Amino acid sequence: MKNKVGVEISENVLKQYGYQPFAGTKIGHLISQRVAPAVHVMAGPSKVATSLADVVKNNVRDGMTISFHHHLREGDMVFNQVMQLIIDEGIKDLTLAPSSLTNVMNDMVIKAIKAGTVTHITSSGMRGSLGDAVSHGLLPNPVIFRSHGGRARAIETGKIKIDVAFLGVPNADEMGNANGMTGDAAFGSLGYALMDARYADKVVLLTDNIVDYPNTPASINQTQVDYVVKVDQVGDPDLIGSGATRFTKDPKELKIAQMVNSVITHSPYFKNGFSFQTGSGGAALAVTRYLRQAMIDQKIKASFALGGITKPTTDLLDEGLVKKVMDVQDFDKGAADSMHKNPAQQEIDSSWYADPFNKGAMVSKLDVVILSALQIDTDFNVNVLTGSDGVIRGAIGGHQDAATAKLTIISAPLVRGRLATIVPKMTSITTPGDSIDVVATELGIAINPARQDLVKQLSHIPGVPVYTIQELQQKAADIVGQPVPIQYIDRPVALAEYRDGTLIDVIHQVQE
Amino acid sequence: MKNKVGVEISENVLKQYGYQPFAGTKIGHLISQRVAPAVHVMAGPSKVATSLADVVKNNVRDGMTISFHHHLREGDMVFNQVMQLIIDEGIKDLTLAPSSLTNVMNDMVIKAIKAGTVTHITSSGMRGSLGDAVSHGLLPNPVIFRSHGGRARAIETGKIKIDVAFLGVPNADEMGNANGMTGDAAFGSLGYALMDARYADKVVLLTDNIVDYPNTPASINQTQVDYVVKVDQVGDPDLIGSGATRFTKDPKELKIAQMVNSVITHSPYFKNGFSFQTGSGGAALAVTRYLRQAMIDQKIKASFALGGITKPTTDLLDEGLVKKVMDVQDFDKGAADSMHKNPAQQEIDSSWYADPFNKGAMVSKLDVVILSALQIDTDFNVNVLTGSDGVIRGAIGGHQDAATAKLTIISAPLVRGRLATIVPKMTSITTPGDSIDVVATELGIAINPARQDLVKQLSHIPGVPVYTIQELQQKAADIVGQPVPIQYIDRPVALAEYRDGTLIDVIHQVQE
Repeated sequence: MKNKVGVEISENVLKQYGYQPFAGTKIGHLISQRVAPAVHVMAGPSKVATSLADVVKNNVRDGMTISFHHHLREGDMVFNQVMQLIIDEGIKDLTLAPSSLTNVMNDMVIKAIKAGTVTHITSSGMRGSLGDAVSHGLLPNPVIFRSHGGRARAIETGKIKIDVAFLGVPNADEMGNANGMTGDAAFGSLGYALMDARYADKVVLLTDNIVDYPNTPASINQTQVDYVVKVDQVGDPDLIGSGATRFTKDPKELKIAQMVNSVITHSPYFKNGFSFQTGSGGAALAVTRYLRQAMIDQKIKASFALGGITKPTTDLLDEGLVKKVMDVQDFDKGAADSMHKNPAQQEIDSSWYADPFNKGAMVSKLDVVILSALQIDTDFNVNVLTGSDGVIRGAIGGHQDAATAKLTIISAPLVRGRLATIVPKMTSITTPGDSIDVVATELGIAINPARQDLVKQLSHIPGVPVYTIQELQQKAADIVGQPVPIQYIDRPVALAEYRDGTLIDVIHQVQE
Repeated sequence: MKNKVGVEISENVLKQYGYQPFAGTKIGHLISQRVAPAVHVMAGPSKVATSLADVVKNNVRDGMTISFHHHLREGDMVFNQVMQLIIDEGIKDLTLAPSSLTNVMNDMVIKAIKAGTVTHITSSGMRGSLGDAVSHGLLPNPVIFRSHGGRARAIETGKIKIDVAFLGVPNADEMGNANGMTGDAAFGSLGYALMDARYADKVVLLTDNIVDYPNTPASINQTQVDYVVKVDQVGDPDLIGSGATRFTKDPKELKIAQMVNSVITHSPYFKNGFSFQTGSGGAALAVTRYLRQAMIDQKIKASFALGGITKPTTDLLDEGLVKKVMDVQDFDKGAADSMHKNPAQQEIDSSWYADPFNKGAMVSKLDVVILSALQIDTDFNVNVLTGSDGVIRGAIGGHQDAATAKLTIISAPLVRGRLATIVPKMTSITTPGDSIDVVATELGIAINPARQDLVKQLSHIPGVPVYTIQELQQKAADIVGQPVPIQYIDRPVALAEYRDGTLIDVIHQVQE
């Protein structure tokens, strides 16, 4: 059968993995029964463990689900330590359920798969050698990709049941009160990890910085924590930030950023009290800069900025151009530092950020969002998971979640090198075209015909040519030609969930 | 059979109400399976309800459990509004499960009982006309009295399953982000209410102050809230605070406060980094004043002050004499205002404060606590629930919870009017003598003989005569004589739980 975005999904796959096919972006008024952990009651004076090895030995068992967060990004020094100990312990058949996987973890994940230690993975995404290995069939079971909101939903409803969470923090006291804001490895918001802390049966904090009791603010508090483990270093401060804190000088990126900015400022949403999410990366930072100027010029102030936060966004907060920053993760040191200083920068967990099955997530109040894409098809569907070669090299992140904003703009170059971004048929679908309103490229924009209101409002912006998505696709094809079809093997290596837990796509093994 | 504090409890009562007898103050390393609410998924742009009457009509059903918090104390304007509508709606057989009941609610609770609207009550306590009515048999089922930590435990483990929570807040946005810190009815910490917000199936916020979205800090956040109801006024600011912000001039209270202070400052716990809970009331404020001077004189700084907080305590924070204030409720406007200004004053929920079935509550790290008593017996057991006439006129509050501190001091006058405080046999037992270390009266102190270390350390303090508890009891009897025995009817009107959910006492109906 075909799901709502036209993806052919076999009944077999649906049955075997327990899925309903994706049926639309609308979330109904369902009742979501939440689950809760089993709490190991503890009344001693300290939770500081003698060694990480002991904690692993005494708590991790064959078949369990273990989790990590990715707030330390490429600077993470937690995952590899813990996973090596688990492999050494000879533990098998684990489900690895981190908020996401970064490149620094790749070798160790591959090692753990090869050792039979990890047999299932659910993640926001994966890249590099791991994505490559998984795409070529390394993992015995398909990876389940979930958005940040989807992961929150899955944890809250018990689809992901975490037995032991290993969470790196830049500070903690002996009872487990911790936050992400101070210490050598400070990374700001603990947004994703807050879910693990609340729902895992056992919570292990790893920190290089044990501070006086009681530690405040306690984003994670002692009622959630079983062990505190002192390690030499939880993260490399130089690699924690994305690095991309300077504005791009790439003329193509600047051009796209100008298009995006023009779309926003000419839309009916650009008015006092509007809200936005820009994300990270060079183009996003450039948009923020242009937007800042437009806000000053037109005396417009935003009610909130949402999502993954960068310093240019916290600068808007300091300048009074944005009233609140709702912060699920910080992409650079500047944003992380700001959270500690500015009470208007509120730490939010990923449920509050984006869980579709709750009493209202922040994304449901979002006016404008700028999102990226690996590929876009002529139905405005977006792929952020697989490259043009069919290999996994991305992450859903908050893509599906934030795409529910009133004005969702995909910012992408028409072509990347010799590869088209806008294509007739993508290697996989992550976010339904239903929720995409505008595609902005360096040549001009395409507006989703489902949004005739926007067609009217955005069709005569100076310097912003409007094309149909088919025209943009043709322009891309004219530059790079038609792609060579990929040869797949009939074996799923990954299942891409929509944020509501339905199946939006099945990613197949790529032939060598 | 007799429980561990010697209270005769019939097998019938244990069976009928599903209790184990109190067996000791120690909490084992059990596993506590938590429960979770059913979430009604909501994705609309606003939760502001058209009327409170509609919300009641559409959400409250016969037999449900409803809850309220008591942070607005005698200034509460929420409870009476809601309960009148529920009575008007003809709803029957509710369980009323507030964090506590204040006098301003008494008439309405009595009305609701008489109407058959409320047939079960669980609370921290009750006073005045309600305590009197219940003690004389008004309620068809026994009230269950739980400590603040016990209530948190009961909610987290499903013993209390709240269907609808009605929570008054001094500010909220249209999606339900709210805190207790600003607005006309500001009361500071939402500590008790945070449990209801997290565990109730439906959460209704009542506020007189709808603010811009998104409202931060969000002690309660939008993922927890179903409705926001605008009311004229949630509380009378003049009655929210306890009023007792000035130091007592009563010579007896000052004398007791001096005794308490001497005990603390001569104990081994009075050193850098110590922690304490003083509570409210004239004597407690006086203790805080004396303690402040001793801290200055001896250059001692506390790591944290805990519990219900008063301005004299937040003053210590401002002065740097206390590093952190861990705040589950504020007793006066000064303390409430301070929370908004000083990030070192951390809002904590009642689980974090005191739940014995979690991964460590703040009370388990507490060095020194000063608690009050209605009666104390010669086994050091304390009664804070019933008067010498057997009538309910008190509340457990955090009494049982904080009594687990390393040094628990009961501060009480030897006699009150013509009634002895220290008696051979109390009208009910709330807190086991096991957890009480010192009783301080205006005449001198008694030290629990189980604490021979303290007997040694505290027996030669200038101006602090040491007696046995029997001697103090005799002195009281010498002044006021023997009390007339109370006539009870063999019908339980209230069950007093110990914090772990075992039955510590059964309070019987008083004969007219």
